[in-house]
Amino acid sequence: MASDTRPLAETNPLPDGIGGRLREQLAFLVEADRLKTVLRRSPLAAADRRENDAEHSWHLALMAMVLAEHADEAVDVGHVMKLVVVHDLVEIYAGDTFLYDDAMAASQRERESAAADALFGMLPGRQAAWMRELWEEFEARQTPEARFAKAMDRLEPMLLNWMARGGTWQAPGVTVPDIRARTSMIGDASAALWEAGRALIQESERRGWARPADR
Amino acid sequence: MASDTRPLAETNPLPDGIGGRLREQLAFLVEADRLKTVLRRSPLAAADRRENDAEHSWHLALMAMVLAEHADEAVDVGHVMKLVVVHDLVEIYAGDTFLYDDAMAASQRERESAAADALFGMLPGRQAAWMRELWEEFEARQTPEARFAKAMDRLEPMLLNWMARGGTWQAPGVTVPDIRARTSMIGDASAALWEAGRALIQESERRGWARPADR
Repeated sequence: MASDTRPLAETNPLPDGIGGRLREQLAFLVEADRLKTVLRRSPLAAADRRENDAEHSWHLALMAMVLAEHADEAVDVGHVMKLVVVHDLVEIYAGDTFLYDDAMAASQRERESAAADALFGMLPGRQAAWMRELWEEFEARQTPEARFAKAMDRLEPMLLNWMARGGTWQAPGVTVPDIRARTSMIGDASAALWEAGRALIQESERRGWARPADR
Repeated sequence: MASDTRPLAETNPLPDGIGGRLREQLAFLVEADRLKTVLRRSPLAAADRRENDAEHSWHLALMAMVLAEHADEAVDVGHVMKLVVVHDLVEIYAGDTFLYDDAMAASQRERESAAADALFGMLPGRQAAWMRELWEEFEARQTPEARFAKAMDRLEPMLLNWMARGGTWQAPGVTVPDIRARTSMIGDASAALWEAGRALIQESERRGWARPADR
């Protein structure tokens, strides 16, 4: 977390008439606006620019609603939505880590844990703990909802890469085995969705939108 | 709906190996990417640009999670989240209608209903009907969840306007009584949140960020 960032709401404090828990909650929700400025690598399908974390999180929530019937275990869709709405918030302070960047991935947990302390700590105590638990549930993938939420997080950029005829799959050093290794966890949540994911990868390789393994 | 728009997925059809309901669902989810390009009038708090509908919808979902305790009637937060995730989708074809634009508001229902037919109609039958029901539930505000979802939709731009020291409240012809009239429905869901909303308006008027009534 950069030392020069103070919470947005401190730059223009809320009216004095708003106090207590609600004042803390609204300051957190103003701070959350920053997620709209965290850029991912994925190109949008509908415009010539990169996606940001907030619109990505919305897309995952909609996907969870539409695709829940393909989950291999019963999932509480409302809970999946909570996980995906919260899952990237720590990137407000920790930044986005590109799925295929191993060097950044090594320090990711530590950076994100400090970010979670700072960001969720703006909320009243038990609510701060609840947000952190949701984030940790998502990361740990030990519940059906977390596995399905993570599957959405992997499938969405595959759709964007397909529409971009390559997208981040054409980044230097990324090959089809890398792509399969990073996305196969979709199959932990849904055989049908992973079958679709494999079709996207296989056809992208055939068309030259993704590179075969280095030889 | 412009006659030259065909669904995005038709510009680059999904692999043949993806069929049936899932093919329709993924084509809908690709089309939904367009929500990221529909601009609202509200300025972001965290950057110098206008907000888009997708990131706005995400923000409402997060607000629902954090602020649900202030609802005056018990609400199913997961259901509120479904309503807000879906509520602006029709704007992909119908465009955003500025809250203070009475002329546009007059044709809004008709344009949005046609847009709902086109967009939700991409989904398998019962799922299309479900999405439309969610959108209509939100608009009708006859359930506690819809009232709370609508309150989030009114409160979020108030926070952004506060952070912008005026924002859309400074648009030509908009006065404090207009603002109160368009936002007082927050009080149908939560007395505490409407009290905060009134504090934001009152203090904005005092500071000259919103104009008093025309005299």
